[in-house]
Amino acid sequence: MNSRKMTVAVVGLGRFGYFWAKLLKSQFNVIAWSRNPERKVPKGVKKVSFEALFDADALFLCNAISSMEAVATLLAPHLKPHTVVLDTCSVKVYPLTVLKEQLPKGQPLIGTHPMIGPDSGRGGVKDKPLVITPVQQSDEQLTFWKKTFTKMGFKLVQLSAEEHDREAAYTQGITHFVGRVLGEMHLTPSEMATNGYQSLLNIVVQTCNDSWQLFEDLQYYNPYTDLMRKDLNQVLETMLKRFNRIDNIDDSGELSDR
Amino acid sequence: MNSRKMTVAVVGLGRFGYFWAKLLKSQFNVIAWSRNPERKVPKGVKKVSFEALFDADALFLCNAISSMEAVATLLAPHLKPHTVVLDTCSVKVYPLTVLKEQLPKGQPLIGTHPMIGPDSGRGGVKDKPLVITPVQQSDEQLTFWKKTFTKMGFKLVQLSAEEHDREAAYTQGITHFVGRVLGEMHLTPSEMATNGYQSLLNIVVQTCNDSWQLFEDLQYYNPYTDLMRKDLNQVLETMLKRFNRIDNIDDSGELSDR
Repeated sequence: MNSRKMTVAVVGLGRFGYFWAKLLKSQFNVIAWSRNPERKVPKGVKKVSFEALFDADALFLCNAISSMEAVATLLAPHLKPHTVVLDTCSVKVYPLTVLKEQLPKGQPLIGTHPMIGPDSGRGGVKDKPLVITPVQQSDEQLTFWKKTFTKMGFKLVQLSAEEHDREAAYTQGITHFVGRVLGEMHLTPSEMATNGYQSLLNIVVQTCNDSWQLFEDLQYYNPYTDLMRKDLNQVLETMLKRFNRIDNIDDSGELSDR
Repeated sequence: MNSRKMTVAVVGLGRFGYFWAKLLKSQFNVIAWSRNPERKVPKGVKKVSFEALFDADALFLCNAISSMEAVATLLAPHLKPHTVVLDTCSVKVYPLTVLKEQLPKGQPLIGTHPMIGPDSGRGGVKDKPLVITPVQQSDEQLTFWKKTFTKMGFKLVQLSAEEHDREAAYTQGITHFVGRVLGEMHLTPSEMATNGYQSLLNIVVQTCNDSWQLFEDLQYYNPYTDLMRKDLNQVLETMLKRFNRIDNIDDSGELSDR
């Protein structure tokens, strides 16, 4: 396969799809389609009709996790047997299960999770992780995409869908959950901000800048986030109990150093 | 007052006291004392007997907040009338109230909260905030210390004790609380870490590197952290409820873009 001649399609032009199409442009001819006719495409990317999507050699799904079943049903009858389908969801077990069920038997399929977005990828994707989850593809196809992602600057991390979701719940999942919780507290910049508080504010800004749908989908569709939230709740409750009895104050008057 | 000739004493040689003594060394002759005879002093700082402390022109209290009453009682009978006492606690209402009560009437007293520590101040204190809370001091003394802190590189923030504590609860207080809660979850570095998760881990490392006593003291002795913790708990519970009913999953199959 020669990447210079290949055409790659992007399905879905939300914040991530737009960002992803722009990024792919450095390597491919990029075409894009969204159900929403008002979505814009980056310069150099061609907006095409639904039918024209299937001329592409590879198809990147940049739709919301929750719409994967509908998207798969929509695409399935039109896919050519050689077209490689790659999802970009932030969870892997659910969308890859749906795609394997809904797409034609043997359709080349690779899971990916680029661990960046329009905000965190603003300075480029150099050394940012991209999780790749082989599902059903030829060795040649897998090698090609691994090489391509590496050439784009990503640090490749190969994981099974289960491995990905377990680790994502306790990394990306907890970050978004904490960011959204703190977002509800309406924290504001402060003249007396420490480095730590500044980091906390940055997390809030970053996570709350992503769509609410991405946040919900991360929590609903990753089977391991439920456990993560239960863990967090239990630890928080234990910590709160420790401090909620104000008569706990240790007034023994020890001369401890700060 | 000529800072070149002044001797400044540090009381308490925990992680912060050691750091602070080292920092003051660039401006003053620094002497230090700790109740704990095993504490070390930075190079160029003279470890002295308790009695010798009172030869200093200014006395920085670097003991734990919870030991402020005991320390004040210990120092009070020995203080010379001109010696300026400055605390460095991470809360202000409680220690300054105690000091005003326990120290001799009219003893020069200034509250400070340098918003740095051994970790966050490793790269220097340039532009880091230092909160200054005038209590009872001459204009000359206040001007001298403001100039000194500015010369050291700090960004001065003048606040009353109440203003400080209210703002600290929702900045430093919440950061330490979240950091400690996440610390209990034993999060680990990950190959697929996003920027956000990396920031979260940094907060955990930074807050958990400070003493547990500092954390407890921040939560107990700041009258506003109670409200902050209640806020946090309420927001978290609302968020948890939203996700704990798994049948909430929106499976309407809309073709939303990621």
